[in-house]
Amino acid sequence: MQIDLNCDLGEAFGNYSCGGDADIIPLITSANIACGFHAGDENVMNETVKLAKEHGVGIGAHPGLPDLKGFGRRNMDIAPNEIYNLVVYQLGALNGFCKIHGTRINHVKPHGALYQMGARDKTIAHAIAQAVYDFDPELIFVGLSNTLLISEAQNVGLKVASEVFADRRYEDDGQLVSRKEKDASITNTEEALNQVIKMVTENKVVSKNGKEIDLQADTICVHGDGAHALEFVTQIRKKLTKEGIDIQSL
Amino acid sequence: MQIDLNCDLGEAFGNYSCGGDADIIPLITSANIACGFHAGDENVMNETVKLAKEHGVGIGAHPGLPDLKGFGRRNMDIAPNEIYNLVVYQLGALNGFCKIHGTRINHVKPHGALYQMGARDKTIAHAIAQAVYDFDPELIFVGLSNTLLISEAQNVGLKVASEVFADRRYEDDGQLVSRKEKDASITNTEEALNQVIKMVTENKVVSKNGKEIDLQADTICVHGDGAHALEFVTQIRKKLTKEGIDIQSL
Amino acid sequence: MQIDLNCDLGEAFGNYSCGGDADIIPLITSANIACGFHAGDENVMNETVKLAKEHGVGIGAHPGLPDLKGFGRRNMDIAPNEIYNLVVYQLGALNGFCKIHGTRINHVKPHGALYQMGARDKTIAHAIAQAVYDFDPELIFVGLSNTLLISEAQNVGLKVASEVFADRRYEDDGQLVSRKEKDASITNTEEALNQVIKMVTENKVVSKNGKEIDLQADTICVHGDGAHALEFVTQIRKKLTKEGIDIQSL
Amino acid sequence: MQIDLNCDLGEAFGNYSCGGDADIIPLITSANIACGFHAGDENVMNETVKLAKEHGVGIGAHPGLPDLKGFGRRNMDIAPNEIYNLVVYQLGALNGFCKIHGTRINHVKPHGALYQMGARDKTIAHAIAQAVYDFDPELIFVGLSNTLLISEAQNVGLKVASEVFADRRYEDDGQLVSRKEKDASITNTEEALNQVIKMVTENKVVSKNGKEIDLQADTICVHGDGAHALEFVTQIRKKLTKEGIDIQSL
Repeated sequence: MQIDLNCDLGEAFGNYSCGGDADIIPLITSANIACGFHAGDENVMNETVKLAKEHGVGIGAHPGLPDLKGFGRRNMDIAPNEIYNLVVYQLGALNGFCKIHGTRINHVKPHGALYQMGARDKTIAHAIAQAVYDFDPELIFVGLSNTLLISEAQNVGLKVASEVFADRRYEDDGQLVSRKEKDASITNTEEALNQVIKMVTENKVVSKNGKEIDLQADTICVHGDGAHALEFVTQIRKKLTKEGIDIQSL
Repeated sequence: MQIDLNCDLGEAFGNYSCGGDADIIPLITSANIACGFHAGDENVMNETVKLAKEHGVGIGAHPGLPDLKGFGRRNMDIAPNEIYNLVVYQLGALNGFCKIHGTRINHVKPHGALYQMGARDKTIAHAIAQAVYDFDPELIFVGLSNTLLISEAQNVGLKVASEVFADRRYEDDGQLVSRKEKDASITNTEEALNQVIKMVTENKVVSKNGKEIDLQADTICVHGDGAHALEFVTQIRKKLTKEGIDIQSL
Repeated sequence: MQIDLNCDLGEAFGNYSCGGDADIIPLITSANIACGFHAGDENVMNETVKLAKEHGVGIGAHPGLPDLKGFGRRNMDIAPNEIYNLVVYQLGALNGFCKIHGTRINHVKPHGALYQMGARDKTIAHAIAQAVYDFDPELIFVGLSNTLLISEAQNVGLKVASEVFADRRYEDDGQLVSRKEKDASITNTEEALNQVIKMVTENKVVSKNGKEIDLQADTICVHGDGAHALEFVTQIRKKLTKEGIDIQSL
Repeated sequence: MQIDLNCDLGEAFGNYSCGGDADIIPLITSANIACGFHAGDENVMNETVKLAKEHGVGIGAHPGLPDLKGFGRRNMDIAPNEIYNLVVYQLGALNGFCKIHGTRINHVKPHGALYQMGARDKTIAHAIAQAVYDFDPELIFVGLSNTLLISEAQNVGLKVASEVFADRRYEDDGQLVSRKEKDASITNTEEALNQVIKMVTENKVVSKNGKEIDLQADTICVHGDGAHALEFVTQIRKKLTKEGIDIQSL
């Protein structure tokens, strides 16, 4: 039994820092690297690819909407063919840095609003997935478990990895409870750790209404910003190891 | 005896058009495609790569400074390692579109201020050339004949193509007469055509002071904006053909 | 009886031109000047304010979404307080150029997606209107006739001007027929001119279903791109004059 | 005898924070607020103007080059008329937020490369100063003591405030020692405090070569990033107070 731990990295821009990439990278197995549209720039990307390679972490493209001011978190009414093109552009740009560092992109995970839009809209999910496939059919597509991101990626012929969240609650239909609701997050560490183990070992999660539902858990999304986040990831790792689950890259 | 005709393409952005790419492309053999920093965007790049492939024109990356407002024509005091990174990013992005269209980048020609800065500054020329080489050592590097762009590209191990201008006058040292001077351009068509033939057949040009100087002529820079420009290129083609010179891609 | 003719101007950016501002400006009475977010830049704004002042045309701010690549035409999920702030920023910036040219902003018309979002969403309409009022309560607010833009602007205490379209068809409820539908536009010039006269003299329009509906016609939106558009505006002016209607600024 | 303490504020952007504005603002008397070109955005500007007003701090515009990626610190070859326009645009934008908060701009201090370019180039200094004057002749212009920024601002008719640095060393000609040199900064706190007092009370400073030179000290530039910087400003305040020098806004 095995699981991947992924984290968004390389989200600094110009003079602005963002997150503690060097602190979290020893704890994860896959890095989703911003590609310059919602965050990141060419200098940050170069450093981040180098860092990921040094730590033997799987390198992932993390394409986002062209909205630096909104950090790619604001939905935009973009045509599917434009979404296709912005994914190709960003994959290409990241691939440039992989080429100069003698490494390669392993997976792709859409960022923020692009991820959310793709999870709910079949046309958008298809546009993202097709762009990834056309760029390189060997890439692994990471999307929210049980959503259109996964099914459309499979439809175009990509290998997929279903993403789950340690500290987010789920609806009865397997979707995440919206952050706008009070009980969106699990704040009790023990409860979050138990959710992780259940998801990984049983491919099940208990919804906010107490219903046991199916999901696929190939990779867990973690965060590296702040001491608390790092401590939480450390505890997840400990718990997974104790349960005999291998933590390894996709 | 052979020569390449290159032209900057794909310089539209969003709602803004720029140049008549479809009109000039049948007349040239190499397209320098903007990569989103000084001009171009992911949608324009997709269309331009497609257009270039359809016409069997050599595809070139045309990386520029991060200055859309200034169209990449304003010198910026950017560190060499940042120049290295912005070239890698832009080559990668264009390569993305080449991959999805089943084609490849053939050459690289820096744009505007980046070209001018590289022609005069060894450190910058080296940074650009090294980025190209590290990205793909098979790429052909296009730079102003007789400048540091060419010598540094050769130093890092790249194949080079020396660029000459049909309608620009030259200084005694082989540099172009600055556009700020009155006699920078040749306005007489016959004179320009004769300059072209002399450059291609003899690898020589007569400077503004009447001195005959050496240069290497592998590719001629032409423009496609407006009826006059198109007519001028047509005449160059006619003249070259009449002189028995093959017009073909690098 | 009087009417204003407004047109979007100053939509060039950097090296990119857009529209024939100098051709249309003698034919209009109000200019909506782009403020640098969806189009326009500081150099274009300076020229456009100067041009508008020289022609005695009413100067209007034309604030848009922060989306140069999409020309401000793509809906974005922006929070109302952020919309408030982006309107203030853009009004301020345009006001800067009015100050140096010894003139002033007369009206405000939101651009593209911001206009459409405000016409349909009360919270957004309110945010835009409140920003305009807080910036300067004397400004005239231009919005689509019969929509939330007008009612919310009135609610915050602004003077309003209802905008109508010469060549667009209307739904029974007074909204514009979506451009996605076939019969969105009136292509017959005579029909369009008759619609204009009916709107201005009777404050009525015949919907696409043949129903006569009320609207308020204070200003007509015209376009200046291309010979056809200019000819159409010339005919509107002729027709209005013939009917004894004064064409003058808000 | 009196002195002003100024600090750059509002340099966050979108999701990116920058500096501890809330911590430093109680210690200063003038805030230089970024205007969206090199840093800052409309949301940050709104918060920063509000914060400055609440603390009774003098509000200053801090216009920069259009280079977010380089934080406005990279020299750019921009034409004087373009510099004039970018200053007008940014002053206008900040003024928008002052208007909605019922306050006003008190001073203008160019940022980073714009400041450095203006200090050394008369044409650029003139363009900046003229823009400020044309926008509002009552504004106070802040520039490096003994430089073209000050003399050109005086030439166009502006009131000026000469800026000095507590912890930077000076050349014999009154210019700052370049940061590229080893002894550019004074790291000994006591030495820095003594330099401050000498500059304020005697309008003199001892150059790196031991020569006593004249300068004008109207405002001291301080920084708010980090515990050390805040402690240093606290000590400057204590020392100034002890010497009977009033700390007050320009």
